[in-house]
Amino acid sequence: MALRRVGIIGSGNWGSTIAKIVGTNVHLLNNFQKEVRMWVYEEEVDGKKLTAIINDQHENVRYLPGIRLPTNVVATPDLCYAAQDADVLVFVMPHQFLQRACTQIKSVLKPGAYGVSLIKGLALSNEKGIRLLTDLIRDELQIPCGVIMGANLASEVSLENYCEATIGAKDLAIGRELKMLFQTSYFRMTIIKDEVGAELCGALKNIVAVGAGIIEGLGYGDNTKAAVIRLGFMEMKSFIYQFFGDRDPQEGTFLESCGVADLITTCYGGRNKRMGIALATSNKSLQELEKEQLDGQSAQGPLTASEVYVMLERLKLLDRYPLFTAVHRICTRELPATGFVRCLEDHPSHM
Amino acid sequence: MALRRVGIIGSGNWGSTIAKIVGTNVHLLNNFQKEVRMWVYEEEVDGKKLTAIINDQHENVRYLPGIRLPTNVVATPDLCYAAQDADVLVFVMPHQFLQRACTQIKSVLKPGAYGVSLIKGLALSNEKGIRLLTDLIRDELQIPCGVIMGANLASEVSLENYCEATIGAKDLAIGRELKMLFQTSYFRMTIIKDEVGAELCGALKNIVAVGAGIIEGLGYGDNTKAAVIRLGFMEMKSFIYQFFGDRDPQEGTFLESCGVADLITTCYGGRNKRMGIALATSNKSLQELEKEQLDGQSAQGPLTASEVYVMLERLKLLDRYPLFTAVHRICTRELPATGFVRCLEDHPSHM
Repeated sequence: MALRRVGIIGSGNWGSTIAKIVGTNVHLLNNFQKEVRMWVYEEEVDGKKLTAIINDQHENVRYLPGIRLPTNVVATPDLCYAAQDADVLVFVMPHQFLQRACTQIKSVLKPGAYGVSLIKGLALSNEKGIRLLTDLIRDELQIPCGVIMGANLASEVSLENYCEATIGAKDLAIGRELKMLFQTSYFRMTIIKDEVGAELCGALKNIVAVGAGIIEGLGYGDNTKAAVIRLGFMEMKSFIYQFFGDRDPQEGTFLESCGVADLITTCYGGRNKRMGIALATSNKSLQELEKEQLDGQSAQGPLTASEVYVMLERLKLLDRYPLFTAVHRICTRELPATGFVRCLEDHPSHM
Repeated sequence: MALRRVGIIGSGNWGSTIAKIVGTNVHLLNNFQKEVRMWVYEEEVDGKKLTAIINDQHENVRYLPGIRLPTNVVATPDLCYAAQDADVLVFVMPHQFLQRACTQIKSVLKPGAYGVSLIKGLALSNEKGIRLLTDLIRDELQIPCGVIMGANLASEVSLENYCEATIGAKDLAIGRELKMLFQTSYFRMTIIKDEVGAELCGALKNIVAVGAGIIEGLGYGDNTKAAVIRLGFMEMKSFIYQFFGDRDPQEGTFLESCGVADLITTCYGGRNKRMGIALATSNKSLQELEKEQLDGQSAQGPLTASEVYVMLERLKLLDRYPLFTAVHRICTRELPATGFVRCLEDHPSHM
């Protein structure tokens, strides 16, 4: 029987962490080729190519310094070389590059291959407003695509601290193979069929985290923060049922790592919460705050809030999502941060 | 039509906060008597009786200093006087006194009265191991009994900071009346029918909070803590379905304030989490730690963990509740705190 192969598309801190795990696991699996190719966006570090450094030193000195990668993980700057021959394509890259990557690898795909996305975010679409990143992969490449989502800070996972993740895969055979490839003694996996719900939780939670930050910045205590997190959670759920109800979302998904655990982690740490605090404690624009605090990078939450806002406005549903709506308006400075709590007083969840 | 009446059984910081809210609300309700009697366990403060101080100064200087109570809240040291004539009996007292209070007021109850419990905890029973506090009320007084549970730190609610709570009431008419009595612009209520699930969440979450504290004390990060909180949440759910499945628990309850929000608040603040940290960072016994840090009072979490442990052991179910089990064993010092994470590696939720 031909041995199967994994290709990893991406090599940031999460991609490199995942390469460490998958590289270690395939070593122990009889039905997989030992070599795992990892696509690296080529750049120079101290005058040397990053791929060369990774292949010589077995460390991604740029994005995951200090963590040894297994020697069977092979870095390549050639996207097609990383993808061709792979039965399992692991997408773990910034979401803005996904479309281009799909276009590039389309023609070299191995028949029968499937994808798994570890990317948290949304794409824009003209019809619906937002589009799942996995739908982009599915449509563009004509392959099935699962997700792995959860409360996973790369830095902690790479240090082998105990945590969990959720595998979302409609096809149970795919779910089981992904579990074999990704689970370790410290990185524990639950398989669910609701790949759409899992992916959407991963994207929408960032809006809630901005809200949690705003509340913290305004000086409220744990009670109010817990209320905001929960109301955001309820809006995530409503949104998923409202716009993706035809794709069989499951209530149980919200209690998985991709749901409640990722939400908690994000609302107590991370850049989206930080942006929320900054919005509540200064009068500067979001862009200025991102420049000051995130080196000019964008936080995902305000972006997702704005995409979701456009959809809700078009369908006249803003009053059913007061938290999502208020977060967006605070991000654009239409609404002062101090007006946030007032917006939650008549929440539909209390009707 | 005869006017209805509320009696409040208890006057600690939560009881006094609730008296403030209910006292204010009945003023605006046409079908309620203005007077709200509040039972106070009589004690002396600076040589004066606490009931007299409350009735003169309209402030519970002992348990809720600085917060003005409405003048229609009348403190009484006479439990029967507080309970008689009341159509709505609000139980908000330390759970160890509940049995005795029920015995005392049994004979004076007004026909048609119902109860609502705001007490978080469990009673012991010989048959099942644990018993709901509301079952004690229901059985002893032969009245219906709802609950109000949620992420509600009395100090924050009394300052009118925005938060939420869940009304659990099988009888929707009771639920609606409770909402009229308890909801304010800053204290928002959702009514659910699953009173049993709501009450159990309020009690069991304290075990999880000890676990969250242990993880924090061991120096783990947000990832691992989120995993522990979620696994504890899953065990709460399993436990409720396993032992109270015949009483119609609902999946949706876990996403209410009494579920996820109260769990988060308790795992990020409060005495149970503090005990967890202490257990992980010293070798002292639980009793010594409680003496040092809680003035000798007991934390609820270790107590509940021990009650639950006895039940699970008797039914040979310990391996299906590894987190509850490990928390109990760490509290008794049978297991070193450092062994906690190892116990979670093969969690049934990952099967």
